[in-house]
Amino acid sequence: MNILIINGPNINMLGIREKDIYGGKTYKDMCDLLYKSAKEMGICLVIVQNNIEGEIINYIQGAYGKYDGIIINPGAYTHYSIAIYDALKAIDIPAVEVHISNIQAREEFRKKSVTAGACIGQICGFGIYGYIMAMLALKNILE
Amino acid sequence: MNILIINGPNINMLGIREKDIYGGKTYKDMCDLLYKSAKEMGICLVIVQNNIEGEIINYIQGAYGKYDGIIINPGAYTHYSIAIYDALKAIDIPAVEVHISNIQAREEFRKKSVTAGACIGQICGFGIYGYIMAMLALKNILE
Amino acid sequence: MNILIINGPNINMLGIREKDIYGGKTYKDMCDLLYKSAKEMGICLVIVQNNIEGEIINYIQGAYGKYDGIIINPGAYTHYSIAIYDALKAIDIPAVEVHISNIQAREEFRKKSVTAGACIGQICGFGIYGYIMAMLALKNILE
Amino acid sequence: MNILIINGPNINMLGIREKDIYGGKTYKDMCDLLYKSAKEMGICLVIVQNNIEGEIINYIQGAYGKYDGIIINPGAYTHYSIAIYDALKAIDIPAVEVHISNIQAREEFRKKSVTAGACIGQICGFGIYGYIMAMLALKNILE
Amino acid sequence: MNILIINGPNINMLGIREKDIYGGKTYKDMCDLLYKSAKEMGICLVIVQNNIEGEIINYIQGAYGKYDGIIINPGAYTHYSIAIYDALKAIDIPAVEVHISNIQAREEFRKKSVTAGACIGQICGFGIYGYIMAMLALKNILE
Amino acid sequence: MNILIINGPNINMLGIREKDIYGGKTYKDMCDLLYKSAKEMGICLVIVQNNIEGEIINYIQGAYGKYDGIIINPGAYTHYSIAIYDALKAIDIPAVEVHISNIQAREEFRKKSVTAGACIGQICGFGIYGYIMAMLALKNILE
Amino acid sequence: MNILIINGPNINMLGIREKDIYGGKTYKDMCDLLYKSAKEMGICLVIVQNNIEGEIINYIQGAYGKYDGIIINPGAYTHYSIAIYDALKAIDIPAVEVHISNIQAREEFRKKSVTAGACIGQICGFGIYGYIMAMLALKNILE
Amino acid sequence: MNILIINGPNINMLGIREKDIYGGKTYKDMCDLLYKSAKEMGICLVIVQNNIEGEIINYIQGAYGKYDGIIINPGAYTHYSIAIYDALKAIDIPAVEVHISNIQAREEFRKKSVTAGACIGQICGFGIYGYIMAMLALKNILE
Amino acid sequence: MNILIINGPNINMLGIREKDIYGGKTYKDMCDLLYKSAKEMGICLVIVQNNIEGEIINYIQGAYGKYDGIIINPGAYTHYSIAIYDALKAIDIPAVEVHISNIQAREEFRKKSVTAGACIGQICGFGIYGYIMAMLALKNILE
Amino acid sequence: MNILIINGPNINMLGIREKDIYGGKTYKDMCDLLYKSAKEMGICLVIVQNNIEGEIINYIQGAYGKYDGIIINPGAYTHYSIAIYDALKAIDIPAVEVHISNIQAREEFRKKSVTAGACIGQICGFGIYGYIMAMLALKNILE
Amino acid sequence: MNILIINGPNINMLGIREKDIYGGKTYKDMCDLLYKSAKEMGICLVIVQNNIEGEIINYIQGAYGKYDGIIINPGAYTHYSIAIYDALKAIDIPAVEVHISNIQAREEFRKKSVTAGACIGQICGFGIYGYIMAMLALKNILE
Amino acid sequence: MNILIINGPNINMLGIREKDIYGGKTYKDMCDLLYKSAKEMGICLVIVQNNIEGEIINYIQGAYGKYDGIIINPGAYTHYSIAIYDALKAIDIPAVEVHISNIQAREEFRKKSVTAGACIGQICGFGIYGYIMAMLALKNILE
Repeated sequence: MNILIINGPNINMLGIREKDIYGGKTYKDMCDLLYKSAKEMGICLVIVQNNIEGEIINYIQGAYGKYDGIIINPGAYTHYSIAIYDALKAIDIPAVEVHISNIQAREEFRKKSVTAGACIGQICGFGIYGYIMAMLALKNILE
Repeated sequence: MNILIINGPNINMLGIREKDIYGGKTYKDMCDLLYKSAKEMGICLVIVQNNIEGEIINYIQGAYGKYDGIIINPGAYTHYSIAIYDALKAIDIPAVEVHISNIQAREEFRKKSVTAGACIGQICGFGIYGYIMAMLALKNILE
Repeated sequence: MNILIINGPNINMLGIREKDIYGGKTYKDMCDLLYKSAKEMGICLVIVQNNIEGEIINYIQGAYGKYDGIIINPGAYTHYSIAIYDALKAIDIPAVEVHISNIQAREEFRKKSVTAGACIGQICGFGIYGYIMAMLALKNILE
Repeated sequence: MNILIINGPNINMLGIREKDIYGGKTYKDMCDLLYKSAKEMGICLVIVQNNIEGEIINYIQGAYGKYDGIIINPGAYTHYSIAIYDALKAIDIPAVEVHISNIQAREEFRKKSVTAGACIGQICGFGIYGYIMAMLALKNILE
Repeated sequence: MNILIINGPNINMLGIREKDIYGGKTYKDMCDLLYKSAKEMGICLVIVQNNIEGEIINYIQGAYGKYDGIIINPGAYTHYSIAIYDALKAIDIPAVEVHISNIQAREEFRKKSVTAGACIGQICGFGIYGYIMAMLALKNILE
Repeated sequence: MNILIINGPNINMLGIREKDIYGGKTYKDMCDLLYKSAKEMGICLVIVQNNIEGEIINYIQGAYGKYDGIIINPGAYTHYSIAIYDALKAIDIPAVEVHISNIQAREEFRKKSVTAGACIGQICGFGIYGYIMAMLALKNILE
Repeated sequence: MNILIINGPNINMLGIREKDIYGGKTYKDMCDLLYKSAKEMGICLVIVQNNIEGEIINYIQGAYGKYDGIIINPGAYTHYSIAIYDALKAIDIPAVEVHISNIQAREEFRKKSVTAGACIGQICGFGIYGYIMAMLALKNILE
Repeated sequence: MNILIINGPNINMLGIREKDIYGGKTYKDMCDLLYKSAKEMGICLVIVQNNIEGEIINYIQGAYGKYDGIIINPGAYTHYSIAIYDALKAIDIPAVEVHISNIQAREEFRKKSVTAGACIGQICGFGIYGYIMAMLALKNILE
Repeated sequence: MNILIINGPNINMLGIREKDIYGGKTYKDMCDLLYKSAKEMGICLVIVQNNIEGEIINYIQGAYGKYDGIIINPGAYTHYSIAIYDALKAIDIPAVEVHISNIQAREEFRKKSVTAGACIGQICGFGIYGYIMAMLALKNILE
Repeated sequence: MNILIINGPNINMLGIREKDIYGGKTYKDMCDLLYKSAKEMGICLVIVQNNIEGEIINYIQGAYGKYDGIIINPGAYTHYSIAIYDALKAIDIPAVEVHISNIQAREEFRKKSVTAGACIGQICGFGIYGYIMAMLALKNILE
Repeated sequence: MNILIINGPNINMLGIREKDIYGGKTYKDMCDLLYKSAKEMGICLVIVQNNIEGEIINYIQGAYGKYDGIIINPGAYTHYSIAIYDALKAIDIPAVEVHISNIQAREEFRKKSVTAGACIGQICGFGIYGYIMAMLALKNILE
Repeated sequence: MNILIINGPNINMLGIREKDIYGGKTYKDMCDLLYKSAKEMGICLVIVQNNIEGEIINYIQGAYGKYDGIIINPGAYTHYSIAIYDALKAIDIPAVEVHISNIQAREEFRKKSVTAGACIGQICGFGIYGYIMAMLALKNILE
């Protein structure tokens, strides 16, 4: 089972960025943890990160025919990127949207997800563990 | 670890209600599965269901001092019950909001959650498995 | 032909409540008249009333497999109860929404019906006679 | 008892127009049925149809002093014609608004009725039978 | 000086229509009064009335090259007819919008004028006398 | 003078619930204080609390013919219960709306009161003392 | 017949301020013209101007018992002064709202009049001549 | 191939009406050009124009069974005529919406098309040439 | 205990202004009553009134260091004066907002209070007695 | 005549992406067809595609001084890219906006074009043929 | 070079008012600093402050013909005073809007400036130094 | 003192793009001027420009630990880039938002800044000089 995690803008700032919201672990800590967890679950995982909306679309399109599932944290693009929504709709791979913080308990503009409608489901508020939950969910769906 | 699952209105109609959206398993099937999963995880689980907004609040208030975590699927009350939001805020127990279907990919009025802001996080779109994910998430937080 | 009339909050105050809007007949007068009319039409009628949103849902769910048609006057819940809408969607029984007053000619917030979208149709403005019209309509559909 | 049925734009396309919504009976079938039903009820019925907003107003004004009741299906004008609303207000004849389909279960813009506020009440969702219900309602009011 | 008064839908119901708002004088009374006043002012006046939005546009277009000024009471079309707005913009004749009642002191939807933006100015609330004020205003502008 | 205090959802959590907003006194403390104050004022007081919207309506309807005044703190239902609004309108007893916290200085959604329009007046922001003010106000009105 | 003209903020800048909108005549020119016209009409006229919202209210209150009619151009306060609206409602003198420019043909925020609802009527777009029209209208009403 | 061009209100004022927006060619010039172009393309063309919303609906209904394609410029009705939308939906003929000016670069209210949703597509901003483009598009679809 | 009552625009018109809403007592009657009540409560009271928004701000600023509490009825400024809100925030004196009428049961625009968010609480609907309630509330807070 | 076609995000997924909306032809098929058509029309055509909003801006800026016309299908950026709007405004080259599907007949958020206001006109709903129509339109304008 | 600084409501409370937002310097400190800085820059400066909207307009009008530039901090009036906007438009003097705090990072209602559209530009968030920046900007423009 | 100026989309078109709004100086002229000014102020300045939203984020992230201050002109991204807002929040460097034109005096959609809330302050309307003001402001803050 091949799974691609796509992290959007500013996710790479983890551990630097507003620690009271996103926690103190760095982005590298997170990747290490996720690679380790994936291995234990028998998942072949690739993690990418990009600040550019269009490059995220490139990753999504590039997943077509190569991955069994996508886990996407579109960062701030969650709230306005119809282009990412379209890209997820264009390919035929189950996707799961993950957010580290509980977007429902923050600013008004973070409550709306433009992209989640093109995914199977959404997980938010569980910190880094949300990605592991997403891998479990994809396993449950794909197996 | 004591966990209470509170199901809101019409969740008991599972297996009868719009099967293309909610799946063909009955509510009893779901409960059996969740009790079995909880046991395997070493969780002491209680599941309740009620169609009455105020009774859901009673369950939430009653959980105070008795449970370590709450998993709540407020059904349609998700979208307008400030009273449930207040009840979750009033007690000091971590709560996880679960939805069987992907509420972000349905009618406009289902996209807004009034209650999720009083929870740790939200999981939607993964069917019955979402409750198991919520139990895993609570274990991860509480342990 | 078995038909269930479900009356929502404050309908039982008929004859007491704002008589210029709802007329001077009491709730008991209305029930007597409807039972009599139903009998003449060969309809086996049951009328229930409840002020609690969730109990109305209980009635709707309870109608499943027992009644051929439902006539519902959700009272004020008409304007915000997605939960009643969901309940009506969940069971497979034709339902007719009735309002005693013309909700289109009153306060702005009464013009929107959240529940009517889950019914076959809506009748409003004809006083108590609207229930008789609803019975006729169900007869016309079911026969 | 003299009653005038005024049908607005595109009602004459019945049987041709979107049959899954409006049913397979033609406009002529409908008129025949309504004339027959009226006769049985002892109602002297006239049915007119027009696509022009202003001609519908002419019909309404022309009814003044000649008819005891009006049944109006303003078609799409329902949703924006303040002019028809004004015309119904200007004369002193009880009017009933009828819609063949359940306008509450269709597109968002069909949920709002501008004209119903100038009528006694509204009936929608019962197909052609809605006109017969309207005649019954007018009989009940006028007798 | 040639002036055309165009009255929109339901203005012809004056004296019949809601007398507490529009006064007790009939439409004919009004026309007589206006013709008489016009004569005294040395204005060659023509008054037309029509319930059909498009015919009002025909009158506006027909005024091109024939009249020095237009006085228009678009009735309910005031609030939604972009087509009348366009017609008034298309010809090069000064127009004055008149309303018998004070549209600012009535229902919310009557406060907005779509058509007045294509006129020189607007007069409302002065009853029939508003037309005379409009003639005076046109005289003042044209002379 | 008989007065009924109706407390809505989560008011019973006083002293447990968000103490920085609602103060540290428990619900029982409050009731004791109010019973004592009522006695001193010569008021025969009954206090009820319920989390269920419909039961609050039952209390309001039940007050008809039994109480001289109602003091209601509808809790979160303040912001959306048209049904409670209708119930207050249906009976003919002066009612006063009380809120412990200043709802105008909190979240946006707490600023709007659906129910206050059916009361004589509203008091908010004075903590438990607000109920005593309401009793004084009712005395002033009723005597 | 005693009439008071109250001019709001920036009206005194006439002839200096945006001449393409308001014309080239100065405020003094205007006053002279209006005093002269009033005299011809047998009106005893007083004109005041003030930039302060509350002073305009003082003028309105001061008119009580002294003037037969008020002509008010509230300038920019037209669009937001509920206080002026209330002042006009508080006294029992017929008032006419005048605007020099056609407020319906300018910025969106100028289309809404908060104050006109407390007047008999509104006149806009006719330049200085609008005040004369207002005097004529008041004469017509008062005589 | 039979094609009907339906022009809505004020299109006949071409060459008179706001030339900077719509160009200097007259309506007759346009018709001549279109008839000539149609002939060259082997299209049997009929052009009609009407200012009346309902007559445009009559033309659309009349096209049923007689024409292979419709080109419609609903003029101002584009922005509010649900009735024309319904008429286009009612018949089964491919329709193309054309606008002479770029409605996306003008007033806010011109950006919204109510009618285009019932057409195959929309062309705007290319002047009279837009109609020729529409004929080419219909040829491409029908052949 | 020194308390300042600040009355905003048109409160001085009490007894003249819309008596069905505000009651028949004059402003002087009210002041006399309040001075008398204050004396009985051992409060040193000063009452001021002003129609000018900025003068109300001057009073608020002037209260700094001189008064223990403020009672303010900002009249119509309640609904739009951010400047008064800021002034109340700027000084460190507990303030209570009072309205004579129940602003929740009147026009839509009166339901929103811009200023109450800078006060301890709000009292509305109890007529003149509301000021006495406010004095009691301040006593309760300050003692 | 040099023309640049700029395709935005996901247009390259043609033939893969939702075929019921966008048709079964691949992106390469489309390019071949357009190059061939351009050649026949004597147009020197270049086609580019990019998923990155800023790269599309780079293409637009790069066209300055090199191309006679631009055809742009901004994909999802149509609905929110003010930056592309600005880029089109910044250069002085006629641009035509093309959409393969009828954006007026899809989701609500696709109805609004942010970018079309900076173009000469818009063509939508005609599939791949829309690009050929755009080339014809540019020829018509440029020649 | 003569420059007038106009400070609106509550700016005089500097050093008293919410120090975490506005800083600890008093209004007098600020004036001293600004007079000193102006002198160094060769600017002849006058500073005025007023809480009354209309007096601010008086200052603006009074500047006409006397000052070369205006620096205005309209305080809370920024967000709703169309009258100040009009006053700034009426005179022909370059004006700069200054805010001590960053109004974009505070409450939603502070983000909108009604008055800035009548100025050359706006400076916010730089504390007292913003006024010095404004003086530099005016020097840059005027010299 | 190290300062980074980040210019967003289309700023590089200065001198080409709409000169009436942005002035006639080219982007190179501007950079030369700013480098020169910075040198005089003892600032070590770097200027970058990019049309890609994500690259701007890369620049912001890259500034972390390298620069003392950021001056950002996000161009059109100002109005919708939550991602840039997040990036500015993520790093701990004071940032100043600059706009060449007065965004408050242009189209409605330019009035709202999504990004300014993550900056110290905003400067707009002073042309190229705004950047120099921003450098002065940063000096004032950092020194």
